[in-house]
Amino acid sequence: MRALALSDSGLIYTPDWPTPVLQTGQVRLKIRRAGICNTDLELIKGYLNFQGVLGHEFAAEVIEGSPEWLGARVVGEINVACGACDLCAEGMRTQCRNRVTVGIKQHDGAFADQLALHSSTLHRIPDSVTDDQAVFVEPLAAAYQITEGIHISPSDEVVLMGAGKLGMLCAQVLKLTGARVKVVVRRERPAKILEQWGIEAVQLADLPSNRAHVVVDCTGTSEGFSASLGLVRPRGTIVLKSTYTGLPQVDLARVVVNEIRLVGSRCGPFDVALRALENGLIDTAPLIEGRYPLSAGLEAIQTAAKPGTLKILLEM
Amino acid sequence: MRALALSDSGLIYTPDWPTPVLQTGQVRLKIRRAGICNTDLELIKGYLNFQGVLGHEFAAEVIEGSPEWLGARVVGEINVACGACDLCAEGMRTQCRNRVTVGIKQHDGAFADQLALHSSTLHRIPDSVTDDQAVFVEPLAAAYQITEGIHISPSDEVVLMGAGKLGMLCAQVLKLTGARVKVVVRRERPAKILEQWGIEAVQLADLPSNRAHVVVDCTGTSEGFSASLGLVRPRGTIVLKSTYTGLPQVDLARVVVNEIRLVGSRCGPFDVALRALENGLIDTAPLIEGRYPLSAGLEAIQTAAKPGTLKILLEM
Repeated sequence: MRALALSDSGLIYTPDWPTPVLQTGQVRLKIRRAGICNTDLELIKGYLNFQGVLGHEFAAEVIEGSPEWLGARVVGEINVACGACDLCAEGMRTQCRNRVTVGIKQHDGAFADQLALHSSTLHRIPDSVTDDQAVFVEPLAAAYQITEGIHISPSDEVVLMGAGKLGMLCAQVLKLTGARVKVVVRRERPAKILEQWGIEAVQLADLPSNRAHVVVDCTGTSEGFSASLGLVRPRGTIVLKSTYTGLPQVDLARVVVNEIRLVGSRCGPFDVALRALENGLIDTAPLIEGRYPLSAGLEAIQTAAKPGTLKILLEM
Repeated sequence: MRALALSDSGLIYTPDWPTPVLQTGQVRLKIRRAGICNTDLELIKGYLNFQGVLGHEFAAEVIEGSPEWLGARVVGEINVACGACDLCAEGMRTQCRNRVTVGIKQHDGAFADQLALHSSTLHRIPDSVTDDQAVFVEPLAAAYQITEGIHISPSDEVVLMGAGKLGMLCAQVLKLTGARVKVVVRRERPAKILEQWGIEAVQLADLPSNRAHVVVDCTGTSEGFSASLGLVRPRGTIVLKSTYTGLPQVDLARVVVNEIRLVGSRCGPFDVALRALENGLIDTAPLIEGRYPLSAGLEAIQTAAKPGTLKILLEM
């Protein structure tokens, strides 16, 4: 089958990747569409030393396996949990101690014609949600993990740092809380989309220090985190929504003195994201910046890697 | 009057410090007893460039001012709030944007015969609470700020890093939650006191990785924080209970991936601390390691600065 994968010789596109063999509990998915995420770009640079088929944002059809799922149009969670560890037993399957992660860690991903995936990770896509929309379920779930993790009051002042692919979904989720949301942007395109959505786009320099109840940092950079620490008010919360590279220096004394809360936030609830899309609460259309056939995957990755690019889709 | 103070020429003891002049709303306190805290030692090293009388842990008697307070035996909060800013209006007086801090920032402290202090900061000491105990009210309030800030369930596994002056009070507060508490100790004396209290003292190397629901870091060191991050389980909480010097490097990616919460924690509720002492819930006696008259203040500071020293009291 065709696949875009990381091999010994780096990123490759090949029409001859072995078709997956189903393991117990797995179904065979025919991938219909997939999205390129910053994590894919980091993996290509060497993050986690991953080898295999990339891709963890997708819409697919079940073409083999459990009759209960056969023919269903689905998305799949990226964490495949063991179901047996203490954290799984407590319902924290995304934090499973023995998890593998689709297209990220010890499990092939969705930039291919087919993917073998455990049926426990599947969610049906409602008829009214298109494949284009469904590709956003994984990052949208991650955006909803913000409000799974902390309470945002409608009277709160919220600042979002980083108006990239994930940030633009977070901005919409945050707006729905009723809070006053300001998004720090550096580029014109996201600023225009935010304006369309009625969300205020601002420059960092225009924001007052120590005033925001909640800052959501989607930058994944040391500078973004430092700026967040400057914006949040005493007893406020910073949600760390993107992973950081390296070991940023952190003014922990300020965290103590101002009694700041830092909340790490990763994968979120797929059912919530699907319901939000079904109910028309989230707009994904303006976030799609390009489409490529899987066979042009290398070019798609190149485009996605240009700073400021929003979502690039792969069509199978 | 006599005072132990930071001046242009560093730490001094003098019998000739000017007696304070009362400002509006202030009462005159005759200090009866005071305690030396790590913050005092940091201030002496240059932290915050403080100049003036040191000391913020004390028991005193009101000898001049509002009749309502005259003759009362009191402790005083260390944050003198403006009562007018947004944070004061929301009841966060310890985070007041215009606060001064007794013996720490723009306000003389209690290592002296007298202290002029605003009456809004005062709390009466119950008759059954001795001066020796009352000196611990300020750090004990800080220890209670842990459970003011986060919920600790009796089924939680809790690790406390740093069995120093503050840590030994935190250990007792944590034990009262009913949680299983383990305290990482390096010295014999705190280990013995913890044993007396029925609290488990352990070595860092004996603790499993990624298992504690809550880690309280009282070390104030980069190494202590890193160790805390290694001990806390996914979705667990690290309470940062001591300020840190410099800008520690922090594995923020781990905070994100494991969805850790970091909670800065500073000054706490004096009324809670006084009630706990009155009710006999907290044992302070074994924490007192030495007593000095105020006139031997320089020697007292030297003793307090020896690593592993618990509480040194000054008697006026």
